[in-house]
Formats: sequence, C-alpha cells, structure tokens
Amino acid sequence: MPMESHIAPVALEKAYRLINHGPTVLVSARDGDCDDIMTVAWACAMDFSPPKLNVVLDKVAKTRQLIERSGTFVVQVPTAAQLPLTHYLGTHSLLTDSQKLTNSGVQLLDIDGHDMPFVAGCSAWLACRLIAEPHNQAAHDLFIGEIVGAWSDTRIFSDGHWHFETADPALRSLHYIAGGHYYTIGDALTVAQPGAE
Amino acid sequence: MPMESHIAPVALEKAYRLINHGPTVLVSARDGDCDDIMTVAWACAMDFSPPKLNVVLDKVAKTRQLIERSGTFVVQVPTAAQLPLTHYLGTHSLLTDSQKLTNSGVQLLDIDGHDMPFVAGCSAWLACRLIAEPHNQAAHDLFIGEIVGAWSDTRIFSDGHWHFETADPALRSLHYIAGGHYYTIGDALTVAQPGAE
Repeated sequence: MPMESHIAPVALEKAYRLINHGPTVLVSARDGDCDDIMTVAWACAMDFSPPKLNVVLDKVAKTRQLIERSGTFVVQVPTAAQLPLTHYLGTHSLLTDSQKLTNSGVQLLDIDGHDMPFVAGCSAWLACRLIAEPHNQAAHDLFIGEIVGAWSDTRIFSDGHWHFETADPALRSLHYIAGGHYYTIGDALTVAQPGAE
Repeated sequence: MPMESHIAPVALEKAYRLINHGPTVLVSARDGDCDDIMTVAWACAMDFSPPKLNVVLDKVAKTRQLIERSGTFVVQVPTAAQLPLTHYLGTHSLLTDSQKLTNSGVQLLDIDGHDMPFVAGCSAWLACRLIAEPHNQAAHDLFIGEIVGAWSDTRIFSDGHWHFETADPALRSLHYIAGGHYYTIGDALTVAQPGAE
C-alpha cells in the first residue's frame, strides 16, 4: 500500500511527542522477506536530539530476532479503531502462528527510503536504527533506537501537536493495562506556560 | 503526614500495572535531610518478576543526584487534580529554587519501612531500589530500578485493576506531551480474552 495523502513527516526534534503520552505501540521489523509486528506496552522516549527511544522485547519474540538481524525497526501508534488488531498482534506469535500477519488482517504501508514494515491505519510512525547495547538486550530485554524518521496522520497530529480533543475518537491512542483491558487517551488539560509553542 | 486509610499495598507481581498505561510520573528521592521531586514523562515498566522499571533523569536534576547517593527512589502517579503541582515540579529545579518543595505546596506521606519521600494525593506509589548501571546512567540518562514496594489509592486502583471509568475523574492519570499540554487517561476498552483476570 502506498503512503496515503494524510500522512506527513514530523520534524525529528518533535518526534518524541508522538509517544510522550505513553501509548501502547506496535513494533515491527523486517529481515529479508520476513516481517513481524508485535504489540508493546513498554516503550518510552529517552532523548530529544538525536531522538532516541527504548522498547522492551521478550526473548521469545520473533520481532526481536528480526531487529537483531536487520538493526532497524518501526515504532507506531495504533488507534482505538485498531483495538482488535493491536490485541491480536500482542497475543499471537509468528513462531507458533506462521500466518500471524495474514490472520491479523494487518495492512502494510510503504514509506520511500525506509525498507521496513509500516502498519497502515496508525496515527504515528517512528523509523528507528538500533543502537546496539548487548548488555541491555541480554540482561533487561531493553532495545534502544535512534529515531531516524517520523511521520503522523495529520488528522490527529499536526504542527507538532496531538489533536485528540477535536479529532475523530476512533483515532485516539490505546494504553494497555493487562488482561485485555485498555484505555484510550482522554481529555486535554493545559497549564499556562510562558513561551510555550 | 501518616499513610491514609484509602491507601493499600499492591502485590509486586501486579505492580507494573500501576504505570503500564504510560502516565507521566513524579520521581522523588531522599539523601540524608535533602528531598527532591521531579516530574518525568519518560518512565516505563520493564519486567514482571522481579518487577523493574526505568526512568530517564537529566544530568542537571537534583533528584538524580539524590538517587545516585541513596540508591533508592519513588515513582508515583499524580492525578488530574495535581496538574498544577505536577507542572510546577517539572519546571522548577531545586538547584535554582532552593524552596522548590515548599513553593510547590507538595505534601509528603510516610510509609513504614521505606525512608523515602512519598507524595501525598497521588494514585499509586512504587518504591524502587536502584539497579546500578553506570553505562546507562552516563550514556543515556537511564536509571533502572527494582520495584520493592507498591501501593495504590484504592478509590482508583484495587484488586489489580484501575477504575478510571467509574471513579472520580479528578483521580485520572496525566499524560504529558509538551509545552504545558497534558491529556488525562480516557475511556475503557476491553477485548474478550479467555482466562483474563
């Protein structure tokens, strides 16, 4: 699927904002002709410039193997409309369900210059280059990535800001707790701050 | 301030659920007679058993120095009612505002057996022991802690679950973006899952 017209790049210095509110994300990776995608609640921004993030990936995850081999991955923010897809991708493994991606109904998106599997229908995408940290990966299942490209669905994130309060609620982010229980992001609260943009 | 009657321990194996939805947190620490508290959007669970989490702490933060000296810290989840306090603690430094805690209006809570500054009025508290990782701390400002105690306000989290959908909206968690813009956590969405508890 080609990139859709309502998707636009996000400046790298504002890329952290795409996950700053702690959404559950989809992590995807490609190695050769193998793609996998997994749902990850443990993902977090960790630097502004160059922008970095971290994700926790269990040792049994096929997506983890693909990242270790390719050195690249995508972190994307699924929407409330993608709840069944998000839960499917978080509860099935390519190792035991060889048709996982087909069975999940996921659609992939191409973004020029980045040979990675981007999930269509998400609200934001972060293309990452693995910063290899063997100790963190082995001891903590912790993978650190430098964000090398960022894009958003401009219907929900534009001009460096999320518009959850005015956009279609179906585009709100998902925040997983446990046992199939998720919350969507809620209402906006703003503190007056001199010089804020 | 003594511990209030609506605060109860959370089983350590369910402690990750207190931050699994990606709230902005308050990180507090004590070294001798010095306490500090800072607001952190970059905090994330990273293991179930023993439960671990990570937080990103800027090198200029006094709270970071206190954690490096004491080896302990608290991660707590502030509420929508605490928005002004949360923003104050995230935009003022003890290094330039020596009366930061007094000026913020923060109230501290004692929890027996843990000599750390717990912030009263939060919805959840995680007492952590620093797992020293000099490389991560120096290269990534990343601090890993083992969760050694967990408590919740039972009006909003009980029996291992958040009750945002039925409790007072003033107790909802805060999710920071940038420039004084926060969101609260929103509506519940549940996927039917066999065996879920």
